[in-house]
Amino acid sequence: MIVVKVGGSLGIKYDLVCADLANLLKDGHKSVLVHGGSAETNLISEKLGKPPRMVTSVSGYESRYTDRETLEIFEMVYCGKMNKGIVEELQKNGVNAVGLSGMDGRIWEGPRKSAITIVEDGRKKVLRDDFTGKVERVNLELIHLLLDHGFTPVLTPPAISYEGDAINVDGDRAAAILASALKAEKLIILSNVPGLLRDLQDETTLIREIPSEQIEEYVGFAQGRMKKKVLGAIEAIRAGVKEVVFADARIAHPVTSAMTGRGTVIRRA
Amino acid sequence: MIVVKVGGSLGIKYDLVCADLANLLKDGHKSVLVHGGSAETNLISEKLGKPPRMVTSVSGYESRYTDRETLEIFEMVYCGKMNKGIVEELQKNGVNAVGLSGMDGRIWEGPRKSAITIVEDGRKKVLRDDFTGKVERVNLELIHLLLDHGFTPVLTPPAISYEGDAINVDGDRAAAILASALKAEKLIILSNVPGLLRDLQDETTLIREIPSEQIEEYVGFAQGRMKKKVLGAIEAIRAGVKEVVFADARIAHPVTSAMTGRGTVIRRA
Repeated sequence: MIVVKVGGSLGIKYDLVCADLANLLKDGHKSVLVHGGSAETNLISEKLGKPPRMVTSVSGYESRYTDRETLEIFEMVYCGKMNKGIVEELQKNGVNAVGLSGMDGRIWEGPRKSAITIVEDGRKKVLRDDFTGKVERVNLELIHLLLDHGFTPVLTPPAISYEGDAINVDGDRAAAILASALKAEKLIILSNVPGLLRDLQDETTLIREIPSEQIEEYVGFAQGRMKKKVLGAIEAIRAGVKEVVFADARIAHPVTSAMTGRGTVIRRA
Repeated sequence: MIVVKVGGSLGIKYDLVCADLANLLKDGHKSVLVHGGSAETNLISEKLGKPPRMVTSVSGYESRYTDRETLEIFEMVYCGKMNKGIVEELQKNGVNAVGLSGMDGRIWEGPRKSAITIVEDGRKKVLRDDFTGKVERVNLELIHLLLDHGFTPVLTPPAISYEGDAINVDGDRAAAILASALKAEKLIILSNVPGLLRDLQDETTLIREIPSEQIEEYVGFAQGRMKKKVLGAIEAIRAGVKEVVFADARIAHPVTSAMTGRGTVIRRA
């Protein structure tokens, strides 16, 4: 079982990811594909006159402030355009894909955090009516049902709160907790960089391998959205996933390249 | 088995539909909910600077011209905002809903018609690059899998072409062919009118019952989008569905009201 997470940043070649994944599946691998959609959501939000508002929490993590209107735009892009675009591409490659959000079958469940404390211009501020949260529980019944019958799940946020509200959750950490729950052999996290870089401006500074017992020391190299990817990797490795790879989704054969160690590899000790 | 189709016109109360359907499911009924999203798609299309283009085919049916950009807006609204909004509402009502498009698991398959002949200003004209088509085949495997394991499918266009392209299809006719394939007892088609009216301007002219052998004679009363609903009903009744009801989705208990005969009822002879 391989969990592949493909991000939502600019430059990602979804057609290459889908074609490559289709080949892997033909070879007998089973996989769940998790995807994002942040860059496209920003674009559509701007066009709809509701520009994105990225906020930084007191603990230093960046996220999207998600009021109800933003949540619905988020769903349009993630669950509509992105999810169905990927399903269509996989179907063209002969994969019987089934696109789902974390709400469907309550796959990703967790608490909603309707108020968040952010830091803006150096000052703390509380934002309310936020539809964000985090995944605490994975309900695998639907995922297993699909995998056992030859379907390939294509999964995207939002998740669902215990009260039934849609919640925007971080896709990388959601993929990590899914990989843990599925006891996946590999979690492959694809984005628009070659992996974890010592210097974000210089792709030749790629960190090729991180000993899993030293992974916490490497959090410092992760900037912006990469921070949550590394946190997700730590969680996944701790929960029993054998290998996490950060790799490039802009190249040909992005999944098989990552499978053969191209990128930043974290192996369980 | 009851197939409920709820339209996408203005005035429809999705919260009432979901609450009512949840109660029916608690009573042991099984159901697939099919939905549209036309009014919201028009709104979002306008906001995105890509106003809808409704065209009339040579045979007199109205449809949405769906180039690639329109298809993606269509998917955003139908599969994103509408589908996940309904899934969320059902989950809040204790229903373990799973939202799907007709592409997922290839539920709705059919030919794409990339060129259509329309009539505009009294003249014939061919439009190309259209992502529309019609459902010819229903693949029930995924639907049965979900129903057999306690999940409630929430299904919406697009369908998938034999070549793997997303195709915009008429939701009423797609619901009808689904009801036929499932050998449903009832197909309930909810919209923002009380049923089929003799005079579209006067809701007191509701046609309460149509003998199934006379249904073709009633096509004349159907105007605009109601035409395809009546065509769908004809197809469903012919294929073995026992009862089709056109009913109002703006009222409390819209589904149970339709179940007890409120609306226009067509019973198989």
